[in-house]
Amino acid sequence: MENRRVVLASRPEGAVSEDNFRIESAPLPTCGDGEVLVRNLWLSLDPYMRGRMSDAKSYAKGVELGATMVGQTVGEVLESKNEKIKKGDKVLTQLGWQLYGCAKEVNKIDGARAPLTYYLGILGMPGITAYFGLKEIGQPKPGETVVVSAASGAVGSVVGQLAKLWGCRAVGIAGGRQKCDYVTRELGFDACVDYKAGNLVRDLQAACPKGADVYFDNVGGEILDTMLRLTNLFARIVVCGMIAEYNATQPYAVKNLRMVLVNRIKMQGMIVFDWKERYGEALKALGEYFAQGKLKTRESIVEGLENAPRGLIALLGGRNFGKQLVKLA
Amino acid sequence: MENRRVVLASRPEGAVSEDNFRIESAPLPTCGDGEVLVRNLWLSLDPYMRGRMSDAKSYAKGVELGATMVGQTVGEVLESKNEKIKKGDKVLTQLGWQLYGCAKEVNKIDGARAPLTYYLGILGMPGITAYFGLKEIGQPKPGETVVVSAASGAVGSVVGQLAKLWGCRAVGIAGGRQKCDYVTRELGFDACVDYKAGNLVRDLQAACPKGADVYFDNVGGEILDTMLRLTNLFARIVVCGMIAEYNATQPYAVKNLRMVLVNRIKMQGMIVFDWKERYGEALKALGEYFAQGKLKTRESIVEGLENAPRGLIALLGGRNFGKQLVKLA
Repeated sequence: MENRRVVLASRPEGAVSEDNFRIESAPLPTCGDGEVLVRNLWLSLDPYMRGRMSDAKSYAKGVELGATMVGQTVGEVLESKNEKIKKGDKVLTQLGWQLYGCAKEVNKIDGARAPLTYYLGILGMPGITAYFGLKEIGQPKPGETVVVSAASGAVGSVVGQLAKLWGCRAVGIAGGRQKCDYVTRELGFDACVDYKAGNLVRDLQAACPKGADVYFDNVGGEILDTMLRLTNLFARIVVCGMIAEYNATQPYAVKNLRMVLVNRIKMQGMIVFDWKERYGEALKALGEYFAQGKLKTRESIVEGLENAPRGLIALLGGRNFGKQLVKLA
Repeated sequence: MENRRVVLASRPEGAVSEDNFRIESAPLPTCGDGEVLVRNLWLSLDPYMRGRMSDAKSYAKGVELGATMVGQTVGEVLESKNEKIKKGDKVLTQLGWQLYGCAKEVNKIDGARAPLTYYLGILGMPGITAYFGLKEIGQPKPGETVVVSAASGAVGSVVGQLAKLWGCRAVGIAGGRQKCDYVTRELGFDACVDYKAGNLVRDLQAACPKGADVYFDNVGGEILDTMLRLTNLFARIVVCGMIAEYNATQPYAVKNLRMVLVNRIKMQGMIVFDWKERYGEALKALGEYFAQGKLKTRESIVEGLENAPRGLIALLGGRNFGKQLVKLA
């Protein structure tokens, strides 16, 4: 048995390409006291990874050139030097883009309660992000209109479903008819706007006859700029992702920031790690909704570690559909 | 006795000019029950008036063409049909740009406690704006750095002085050496950056060696965009005015909004009217600081109603110095 891993070969300028990655072989690692040797089964791909490929200032340090790409994984314990974990346990770790690794920080997960991959999605970081972003920053009140971009994605799909569960009108923004149909028919949003259809302002106005009280932004750029014009008095904007910016060499220039003053908007950045002390609360709520059949999800699966770069590139281009995963074993 | 008033003659496109105003004569008004006839002594000029000259959507309706320009005034009661007010009382009203008017909503003010004009400045709307904007949105903690633009102006000067009183490092941004000297030497700010000196980023960095935790923005545009880069993790931005935008025909395009996500900034619009229920709290605090000699102010006075347009144009161009007033009698 040997390990294989994907390392950062070069930093992208503009769009990410497969050349930015390199696959390497390595011996199986030897784990220290308190650690467990894990065989990764699933790797989560997420938009934040674009930021880690860069050395521009961001909320977390970039990956070093030649180092293994970071990422959350679900795996199976092969050997344990940690008394709380035993061989065969399924665990959630931060082992990154590789087949095997030694982990110190592990969380046991229960495959009987939900498919293992859900712990990387609706019952994991994306779900927690949606929960605290909407609840604590969005602060939606029943009857209000909540708009979320990247609505068919891992975070956006949970935001809209929570908005419905909390008594709001949920409006999604997604790319293409197919995703929009999924968002309204499967996830139960009240409306979905296809930003590729070419009538963004008009379609958003039609989808939000009473304006928007909460905008949960996963994309930034032109859609954020447009939503600024559609927000109501005292609206809240959750700035959770700027996928439109990640591949841009020049930042998008926002023209409607004046609306923050006009409508006394509260706009706030959201990173899930800031809520670490309260993860349990979110996981409890999400777990209950899921157990009651009230939270749906959809997954987009790429097979094999060597295809992880391609999976991330598709995700950043909006060509995935639902939570993006890499099947490692 | 006849009344004279300044009406809105046309809406400006870009910069305001004297042609946008017209001076009219009119008979003295006859006041109804509960009203008082007031001879205005002082008219306050404020940046928000630029917004009211426009019919673009804003937080308050624009002035109709041919109608008297809006504004807060301090005056003397000539006749009273209101039992709580008597002839000779000094009152604060919203009578606008005219010499006489009938007022229903009046607040008696005490000229023995402070000069009458202070009720249009540090002990009035600008002071209240500074107080709630800084306290409730800025939420400064002792030891933090508070930056405020238009620092020698009616609102900005109070923001910085309150920041000092509340244990913070206060950094002003103002136009020109003379204003900056006033801000540091007279008002006691720790530093002041002259945005006209041509080294905005470098000078702000030098003035904020630990970055900025609160930015109280009265100007918008390039200075807001620059400050986004200098804010610390979890910084708060109070969006209180966008004077840089008011005369622009094209909005300034903000390039650094990504920092809202990177640093989890909270950015919130602030209009003083939203705090109406709590004005008393602010006026009590400001009155106490003033009585203790802890709040200083400076006034810029234009003589005569016919010069009010010129005064507003100077204010919008940053050519005033301190609280801008028109002496009407």
